[in-house]
Amino acid sequence: MTLDLDTARTIVAGARAHAADAGFKPLTVVVLDAGGHVLAVEREDGSSNKRFEIAFGKAHGAVSLGMGSRALMARAEQQAYFIAAATSAIGGALVPVPGGVLVNDASGALIGAVGISGESSDNDEAAAVAGVETAGLSAVTG
Amino acid sequence: MTLDLDTARTIVAGARAHAADAGFKPLTVVVLDAGGHVLAVEREDGSSNKRFEIAFGKAHGAVSLGMGSRALMARAEQQAYFIAAATSAIGGALVPVPGGVLVNDASGALIGAVGISGESSDNDEAAAVAGVETAGLSAVTG
Amino acid sequence: MTLDLDTARTIVAGARAHAADAGFKPLTVVVLDAGGHVLAVEREDGSSNKRFEIAFGKAHGAVSLGMGSRALMARAEQQAYFIAAATSAIGGALVPVPGGVLVNDASGALIGAVGISGESSDNDEAAAVAGVETAGLSAVTG
Amino acid sequence: MTLDLDTARTIVAGARAHAADAGFKPLTVVVLDAGGHVLAVEREDGSSNKRFEIAFGKAHGAVSLGMGSRALMARAEQQAYFIAAATSAIGGALVPVPGGVLVNDASGALIGAVGISGESSDNDEAAAVAGVETAGLSAVTG
Repeated sequence: MTLDLDTARTIVAGARAHAADAGFKPLTVVVLDAGGHVLAVEREDGSSNKRFEIAFGKAHGAVSLGMGSRALMARAEQQAYFIAAATSAIGGALVPVPGGVLVNDASGALIGAVGISGESSDNDEAAAVAGVETAGLSAVTG
Repeated sequence: MTLDLDTARTIVAGARAHAADAGFKPLTVVVLDAGGHVLAVEREDGSSNKRFEIAFGKAHGAVSLGMGSRALMARAEQQAYFIAAATSAIGGALVPVPGGVLVNDASGALIGAVGISGESSDNDEAAAVAGVETAGLSAVTG
Repeated sequence: MTLDLDTARTIVAGARAHAADAGFKPLTVVVLDAGGHVLAVEREDGSSNKRFEIAFGKAHGAVSLGMGSRALMARAEQQAYFIAAATSAIGGALVPVPGGVLVNDASGALIGAVGISGESSDNDEAAAVAGVETAGLSAVTG
Repeated sequence: MTLDLDTARTIVAGARAHAADAGFKPLTVVVLDAGGHVLAVEREDGSSNKRFEIAFGKAHGAVSLGMGSRALMARAEQQAYFIAAATSAIGGALVPVPGGVLVNDASGALIGAVGISGESSDNDEAAAVAGVETAGLSAVTG
């Protein structure tokens, strides 16, 4: 299947609802398609200027290399120079901390990615997972 | 006033409703705050990969130089080298065709910009103006 | 409120007066608006060539991510790869050492940022705070 | 002689006084040293976000190639591809329209450059010349 805009908006709404329930700080939520291109974005009031860029970097790094941004963090802990090089090689948008998750459909096919920034990285990731599950899809965090 | 997310979403919804009524091709709608930073984005199904970047460039060029992207087109027609130079100077994101409009509040203060891509430039602009007016704000096209 | 040029100049003058009283080395002082755009700059005689870029990077990193550059340093100490990635994601201008402070108005709203370079980072920050307070505003360092 | 900060500030003040007398729109004034590095900047209230970048590009292009930005415009009219290539080659900051002037001392030595943006290019240049002359120095426009 293809990740369409209605589903992307459901993911955004689900992530924001999770954050509101949990009392998170203002989040910025970005949903990308399987090609790594922007489908939907919402930046909540109080988010700082460049939260789109950070959230995009989490999701873009994830979908570019085929793993959640938590796995990219693990690689950064082991080989910071690899992540630095990969970031440069793919054009600059790769943020290797949790909060960027892959989106799989029921068949296990990769159909997109979600990136969130604004809270702790763990909470950013929890909101991303909640959003993906609100849409009945599967999130891959690591 | 500050352009908040709810208002940005109203602008997006208003632009998309205008496009649906008019039978436009799929649009990508981007709303920026007064500083030129992303607030909300929706890319309709069927939009090509980089429509976010094109729509962002219209809005970002407009809010960076303080005029709608129709005025930037007029300048490009007269002095293509100026627009090329300005694009480089401001970091690469400036698309000088209609579809990037400034958003003013009731007092005439600049509070953001909207960029749309997907249809003819004139129709992109019409949808942007409709979206801004749906939110009770004023659009500056040129 | 919006940070206007007269206030920005007051901040610059206050920071420079603090530095002169304290016998600091030549400073470069940069004031940005809430969107991260340059309002006022002064580079004192004897400052090296690229002090504007360093001071700008402190202020721009701060206002982009919504925290003083001292907090960015703490993050860099813990996760250097995150700060490297964020720097790339936001376009290259983020210098994570003290001397970049947020400027809040009396209501607590973020209205800009100040970046200073030339002395020790701690002294750069002290001058920035002094400048902000000269203008009757509040500085956020971390 | 070297262009010091006090002289740079005199140039800024002279340019702004000229603009105020003439009823110009809000200007952004940038003064660079002989190496092309920022000495002083003031962006007047009402200037759009990226006026620093445009004004810097005028002055930086001028001092980089050793001619006022009016001469760069003449070259752009004849060989747009040369100016496009030169802009890229020098790092992106070259805006080839009037408003970027070289600053010479009494001996004819180049000591800096001034760039202004906000009004018509001719008026930007007039303000730059007025500022330079306020400081008792010579402006080269073409």
